[in-house]
Amino acid sequence: MELVTIIGSVAGILTTFAFLPQAIKTWKTKSTKDISLVMFSSLNIGVLLWLIYGIMLDEYPIILANLVTLIFSLPILWLKIKYK
Amino acid sequence: MELVTIIGSVAGILTTFAFLPQAIKTWKTKSTKDISLVMFSSLNIGVLLWLIYGIMLDEYPIILANLVTLIFSLPILWLKIKYK
Repeated sequence: MELVTIIGSVAGILTTFAFLPQAIKTWKTKSTKDISLVMFSSLNIGVLLWLIYGIMLDEYPIILANLVTLIFSLPILWLKIKYK
Repeated sequence: MELVTIIGSVAGILTTFAFLPQAIKTWKTKSTKDISLVMFSSLNIGVLLWLIYGIMLDEYPIILANLVTLIFSLPILWLKIKYK
């Protein structure tokens, strides 16, 4: 595998799975005071649009990465709205 | 402009600028208790790798999007470490 492909793959894994520890932390503490509602609203709508974009282009890496990100970031937004 | 290009562009703007309101909020409150250190560490390393990936491919949209994201997300990480 080429170095550029390795760098891109590691980048994709890190930015996708970054939201998992935040989701776990927020789920456990139920405390969302320091989290920005505007950030997680923009992020979730943006990731949903990336997903639609990937589906329209039939590009599996875009679909997969954004589907996984949405699975982690949607509960954070939901917890933020619930425990506002 | 094609619909798919519009959707991709709006998606890019939303996921890039999502971190700005979080940076402003954290800067103002100096409160970072509810923010995950693992999330913002993974995210910043990931975005930095996306930036390197974009530079290696000479792809300006990847470079620009990740440079802007890094400008917003790096201060959040710095504030999280400072006010831990």
